[in-house]
Order: sequence, then C-alpha cells, then structure tokens
Amino acid sequence: MTKLAVIAFGGNALLRAGQKGTINEQIENVTETCQSLINLIKTGYNVVIGHGNGPQVGNVMLQHEAGKQIFDIERQPLDFCVSETQGSIGYLIEQGLRNVLTIEKINRNVVTLVTQVVVDKNDPMFANPTKPVGPYYQEEEAREMMTKTGAKFNPDPKGNGWRKVVPSPRPLKVENIELIKQLADAGHLIVTVGGGGIPIIENEDGTTQGVEAVIDKDLASALTAVNIKADEFYILTDVPKVYINFKKPDEQALDVITVAQAKQHLADGQFTEGSMAPKVRAAIYFVEHGGEECIITEASQLGNPTCGTRIIK
Amino acid sequence: MTKLAVIAFGGNALLRAGQKGTINEQIENVTETCQSLINLIKTGYNVVIGHGNGPQVGNVMLQHEAGKQIFDIERQPLDFCVSETQGSIGYLIEQGLRNVLTIEKINRNVVTLVTQVVVDKNDPMFANPTKPVGPYYQEEEAREMMTKTGAKFNPDPKGNGWRKVVPSPRPLKVENIELIKQLADAGHLIVTVGGGGIPIIENEDGTTQGVEAVIDKDLASALTAVNIKADEFYILTDVPKVYINFKKPDEQALDVITVAQAKQHLADGQFTEGSMAPKVRAAIYFVEHGGEECIITEASQLGNPTCGTRIIK
Repeated sequence: MTKLAVIAFGGNALLRAGQKGTINEQIENVTETCQSLINLIKTGYNVVIGHGNGPQVGNVMLQHEAGKQIFDIERQPLDFCVSETQGSIGYLIEQGLRNVLTIEKINRNVVTLVTQVVVDKNDPMFANPTKPVGPYYQEEEAREMMTKTGAKFNPDPKGNGWRKVVPSPRPLKVENIELIKQLADAGHLIVTVGGGGIPIIENEDGTTQGVEAVIDKDLASALTAVNIKADEFYILTDVPKVYINFKKPDEQALDVITVAQAKQHLADGQFTEGSMAPKVRAAIYFVEHGGEECIITEASQLGNPTCGTRIIK
Repeated sequence: MTKLAVIAFGGNALLRAGQKGTINEQIENVTETCQSLINLIKTGYNVVIGHGNGPQVGNVMLQHEAGKQIFDIERQPLDFCVSETQGSIGYLIEQGLRNVLTIEKINRNVVTLVTQVVVDKNDPMFANPTKPVGPYYQEEEAREMMTKTGAKFNPDPKGNGWRKVVPSPRPLKVENIELIKQLADAGHLIVTVGGGGIPIIENEDGTTQGVEAVIDKDLASALTAVNIKADEFYILTDVPKVYINFKKPDEQALDVITVAQAKQHLADGQFTEGSMAPKVRAAIYFVEHGGEECIITEASQLGNPTCGTRIIK
C-alpha cells in the first residue's frame, strides 16, 4: 500500500546563509532539495510538504520597512508577510519539483495551497511574545512604535538594536485539511502550511482574522501529519541524525529513540532551543497522536530506509 | 443544474487609489467585494475567482528596490514578485470570502492555489516589451541597469523618470487546470491565476522557468474559463456597463452585444487600451472558444440577472 508522508523543511533550504539570495541561487538550492524528495517519491510515497520561511519573512519585513521609508508604502502586518512568503516559496518549490519530476519522467502533479492556520487567541504565548522578527530599530523609534501600535519590542541580546517580538502560539487547526488529505491520497504532491501557516484567530461569531504571530513550522507540519493520518513524518535539517552531547567528545548519534527517551533528552537539555529542541517536540507530538514514526534527518538521506534518527512510540 | 462561473476582478478591489492601503482598508474592500460575490454564490453557482495585482505588484517591486537600497537585500524578478502577490491577495480574498460565508451561514469551502501560467517564449510581445512596471529611475541609472541586466527601460511619457517595461505575452496554459475544474465542480470556491498567473516558459527538455512578464489577468481568467468549460465569465470593473462614446454627450450603455459588434466597437477605438479594451478582448476570447456569455459589470451588480453588458455569440 502507498505510504503517506509529511516532509517539513526549513526556509534555509532555499535562502542559505552565506549566499546573496539571487533567484539563481534559490533555484539551485530548491532543485537540490527536490532531487532528494524524489528519492522518497520514487519509492511510491504520497507526499505533503510543509516548509519554513525564517530568512524569507525576515527579508519581506525589511522590504516593507524600507518601502515605507523610501516610497511611503504602508507596512503590512506579519500574517500578510507570511502569506507573501507562501506565494514565493510555494512557487519555487512547485516549479523545482515539477522540473525534477519532468527530468526523472515521473508523472506526478504538484499543488501549492495558500494556507491559514488557526491559533487560540487565549494561547498563553500571546501574553509573552519572545520570537524576534523583522528590522532592528533604535530604542527611541522602537518605543514610539510600541506606543503607537501596541506591538512589543525587546533589545537584541547582541546589542544590534531593538526588534519586534511576536508570540509563537500552538497551531490548532489547518484550514482545508480534509482537502489536503484528499488530494494527497489521490497522488498530488502538496505544498502547504508554509512558514507554519498564516496565523489567524477565531472571533466569537465564527469569523477569523489574521494575527501577528509566528507558528513553528515543524509543529504545524506535525499537526498536518496527524490530521491527514500520515504514516511517516520527516523533519529535514542540516545534520544526518540527532545527537546527544552534540559537538562534545562523547557525542553520540541516535538511530532509534522512543518518545520517553526523547522527552528525557529534552529534559536533560540535550537539544538546543530554536534549533533541534522544537523538532524533537514536533516529532513527539506526531508519535503521541497516532503517527508511526518521525524521522529527523538531512534531505540528502531521504529514500535511505535507515536514514536519520527515528522517534517511535 | 449548477452553473459554473469564472469571475475576474482587479487588484484595485483591495488596494484602492486614494487610500493609504492599510490592512484594515484592504480587509474592508475585500469584504465588500466578497459580499457581492455571495449574491452569485447564493443563486447556486460554482465559482472560480481570478484577480489582478496591478497596485500590489507595483508596491512589491518598490519594496524590493527599497530593500536593496537600505538593507542590501537582493531584488527578485517579476515572476517572483507576482508569486508574492498571489500569496497575499489570495490570503485576503480567501479570508474575506470565508468570513462572509460564515456570516451568511453558507457552507462552502474556499481554496487558494499558487498558479503558474505558461506563455510562449517566442511570443512576439517578448520582442516588444511595453508594459511599465516598478520604480521610476534616473536615466543614467536606468541605462546602467539595461546594460547590466538586459532588461528594457523606457522614459515615462509624463516625465517622472525611466521605468522598466516588460512584455505582456498571451497565456497559453494554466498549470493545474484539470484540478481547478475538478475542485470547482465539487463546489469549492477557487482563487487562482492571481495577477494573470506567474509567467513561465517551457524549455526544450520540458522543464519550465519563470520569465519577467505580465500576463493580462482578464485574458488569463478567460483562458481558465474556457478550459474548465465555465458557463459564464464575469469581468468586474468600476462601471456597471460597457459604454460607447464613453463620457461624451451621446454616451450609450450597452446591454447585449454580439462578438461581431464588440469587434466593430474595438476597431472603432470605442474602448480605452489598458482599461476596457483588454476586458472586451477577453470577453470575445471566451465566447469565441465555446463560452455562453461574458458579463462585464461592477461587483455590486452581481446576482442581478440583467446586470452589466453581455457579450454573446
């Protein structure tokens, strides 16, 4: 039987540190990632792709700021900026994937959905925004924007200035999730929940509205994987496996760990916050909600049946 | 039997001249447009929405330029900018439509697709780019960019500086068109071909790549309407009907015209280029390729069975 997999990868799969970020670099990067995905698709998987947008949404926020300064174009809120990156990253992934499929003579279709994700307006994270996003400001300017917009700004720990901080609430519901399952089961390769999804909250009357927040893309992909009953959930990163005692003399790569072991390692502070820790939490979420196994690995390992670190029940 | 309609509306349905373009203004504008669409949906139509992005993609190009100047963020090509607007406009339309449906207690789903549209790399328009886009430059700067990038720049007729001009090739193929039909026939309300679609060309080996061009959104919507065998094609504009001798003493609103009459009026120069003329051409394209009728009208008239100007065989 065909297996259904959700694959989450970072926004840095397209826009890499140390590169200028030209369109040709981005196309080269996305093609490389898509060639790796193909290895899984070739073995008969149905696939849903979730992706991050860290570097991209940062650029969009800077462009909005610069556009305001030079051309007096109104800055738009973070949910709007996320939607812009869903369009652009989705476009490049869909095109890259279509091209790799064409060259490999594999007849599969690719569909990119602009995807909103509901969060709880009472999520405790809203009271404690901690995720820094967008441009650096002088203290005075930051304080003025705080007064004017109600947004929160914090001084950067490295002393680069003040930056807006936004909450990172838990994803609760992926819009169009039934359709995503239906299309994926029919063999379409789906790109969705870009940047963790466009964050929205529900009002009393059932309508929704955008909210300035960032949803963790691995958690949003994990929720997607649970809801579409994916057999496997892959979280792609820049190392082949998860390690304990990472970069220490007694560093040890993990092949298979149980949820209980993963929780213990988390409690022991083995995984860096903002890096491996949220990935391991997303893996735990998937397995605890009915998923078979979550594989954390690097893209080039896909299709290798013993790749990565496998988190199981 | 349920009728299938394609509705095309302009990017200025969200971002209006004379407004600042705040998110609240945009949400108000899109809600108003969606309330009008509901009138058609209530009468039992299945609906595919195409939309323009003129003001939005102009802003994005300015933001890219400003981001380059202030933060040294790489400018991205026009196809990339179009994809960004598909994300943001699609998001606002999908949210606006969902909210109006919720309030009206209509149980219909909304899906937004990031959509690429194939154009012919040998389209004669590529030899003659005429559509001005993006920021104004000083002549010297424009000449330097022409030499460096191969792009074409022309002096603005109103003397505001030099502007990049891009070709406006004919749309040939809408990616995922079978899926669009399948989803629309199943009752999903679809948002697609935003800004006329992300323009791509096909290479010899069957792969595709983005191209700096602007596809007329009415033509792209007309092609979509033909390919999904829509019964009706609505082109929304800011006047209730099409006029001959527009704004002259003998101005006359047109109720129903045949394709032959429409062609005659076009030949007589009755319709302004860049405004009503391309809409009438898109209407003709639809009816000549099997469509029943095309209605050109303003959004507030939707659902009124005698609204607008009807172009028939």
